[in-house]
Amino acid sequence: MMRLIGLDWGTSSLRAFLFDADGMVLEQRHRAWGIRQLPEGGFGAALNDVLAGWPTELPLIASGMVGSRQGWREVPYVDVPAHLDALVAGIRAVDTGEGRLLHIVPGVRDAHGPDVMRGEETQILGALADDDIGERTLVLPGTHSKWVTTRDGRVTRVATLMTGELFALLRHHSILGAGVSDAAGSDDDVDAFDAGVHAARDSAASGVLSRLFSARTLVLDGRLAPASVPSYLSGLMIGEEWRIAAAQGWLRTDVPPLLIGDAAQRARYHCAAASFGVHLVDAAQDAAACGLWRLATAAKLLETDASLVGVTH
Amino acid sequence: MMRLIGLDWGTSSLRAFLFDADGMVLEQRHRAWGIRQLPEGGFGAALNDVLAGWPTELPLIASGMVGSRQGWREVPYVDVPAHLDALVAGIRAVDTGEGRLLHIVPGVRDAHGPDVMRGEETQILGALADDDIGERTLVLPGTHSKWVTTRDGRVTRVATLMTGELFALLRHHSILGAGVSDAAGSDDDVDAFDAGVHAARDSAASGVLSRLFSARTLVLDGRLAPASVPSYLSGLMIGEEWRIAAAQGWLRTDVPPLLIGDAAQRARYHCAAASFGVHLVDAAQDAAACGLWRLATAAKLLETDASLVGVTH
Repeated sequence: MMRLIGLDWGTSSLRAFLFDADGMVLEQRHRAWGIRQLPEGGFGAALNDVLAGWPTELPLIASGMVGSRQGWREVPYVDVPAHLDALVAGIRAVDTGEGRLLHIVPGVRDAHGPDVMRGEETQILGALADDDIGERTLVLPGTHSKWVTTRDGRVTRVATLMTGELFALLRHHSILGAGVSDAAGSDDDVDAFDAGVHAARDSAASGVLSRLFSARTLVLDGRLAPASVPSYLSGLMIGEEWRIAAAQGWLRTDVPPLLIGDAAQRARYHCAAASFGVHLVDAAQDAAACGLWRLATAAKLLETDASLVGVTH
Repeated sequence: MMRLIGLDWGTSSLRAFLFDADGMVLEQRHRAWGIRQLPEGGFGAALNDVLAGWPTELPLIASGMVGSRQGWREVPYVDVPAHLDALVAGIRAVDTGEGRLLHIVPGVRDAHGPDVMRGEETQILGALADDDIGERTLVLPGTHSKWVTTRDGRVTRVATLMTGELFALLRHHSILGAGVSDAAGSDDDVDAFDAGVHAARDSAASGVLSRLFSARTLVLDGRLAPASVPSYLSGLMIGEEWRIAAAQGWLRTDVPPLLIGDAAQRARYHCAAASFGVHLVDAAQDAAACGLWRLATAAKLLETDASLVGVTH
């Protein structure tokens, strides 16, 4: 029996999950309609399309940048330490038309930094057990990678590193990527990736920007093949993320950090972690879907006329 | 009496100097024809245009990226320690047509890194006195800033920091610059610039990439005006250049570093230097022209049929 629809709606993509009454995902859909690339008709048109054919009476919950200032409705951040209950209390709804509500999960703000995230808080809830205790580090690779600390299931610290965005800028817009054909744009040369990770790690207190130009000079010297430049740059950027994490005390060996990412990201991060002497544990897949389910049930969205209950409009 | 023509021919621009017999610049011209944006007809057409009307019998000397693999003729680097004599011995000529030679100054390569420069070696020769003694640090801000050590007038160490290129990437292609109109693209908000320099400096061993996302979160928090983001980003990037210089031992207080740059760059670098407790000394202007003159005279290009003497073709 279908019971809930959850949306993971970020900057560059939209995923929709159709849940049964036990929280199992019956069907999953993906669209390229992130909040920066909506179809004609905007948010409403994107929603209607991705939900086409699914029951219209099911409650709707969404997480991610859809709740940002550039989203459908700005939902204020919840400050750390952010527990499940605080996130539930922070949910706000937007009328999608004809009275149907979309419940949007708030992001989390860490005044230290300051730093923020939207969407990752839901993945984290999905990755952690209901009764998670103790302190834990989570790593969420991406365009903007997030490093997060939780204590007893509450988010207590957030840091953003623009690893993926920097890689894309350097790869596609800088002199370092010039002369590397797009066809050669794969970043799967493991040796070059490792060399980049090590160069970043060994840059010590100077940091990777002191080594960035080596992506050019090593090619001039014939020590790096042009086709391997993307892998090397990927290693430099991910290695720098890990170098910073080490410098800031995020790495711990007593409780292995939990990694939330897709298969390609996980492979690179396990590789980088090994260079820093750290073991990572993969989170269960579909962390976003699990988190949306946890939030929806805690918000009692599944009870009776759930879409109208317990939420400030 | 006109005696020499010198060219400072880089990636994005071409400057030509017409010298008298005493090494004074009689006339100076500027074209946007860097080696990446040549007019139809390529190098030869660019040269003919910038020299139009100047005597055709004068010897020609050029420095910069015109001697790179993507230039008119690749001129091998001279390794550090690179003295004037080694640079002179490394000059190679290209026939510009009808037997007229363009003498191209080699760049300098530092195997440590590895790192390289082309054009800056000539500016450095122009900035230093003929009899410069002792050890000296030189700072050359730019798309690719160079930090250079000389000992007794020889280049002994080279490091490249991609400060200007990173700033442009972040300003124009990243999410940090999104929402900042091009009209608001000035980077002359001194307070925001200073805040960026301090954020980079205070990032300590973590480095500026750990603080980059603050250019977004400070705006979200209302603590940084969108129009001030370019200045803040400029401060972050230049501050990181100085943080790295400090971490790598380039900063010294016994002999103030020598700064070679245009007026806008000098203002920013003096400001950043102050935040690091360092005093900078401006090099005399027209360092490139002075350096070209020094090299041409040392290469005896001004003697008799100079364009054919003492040079390996």
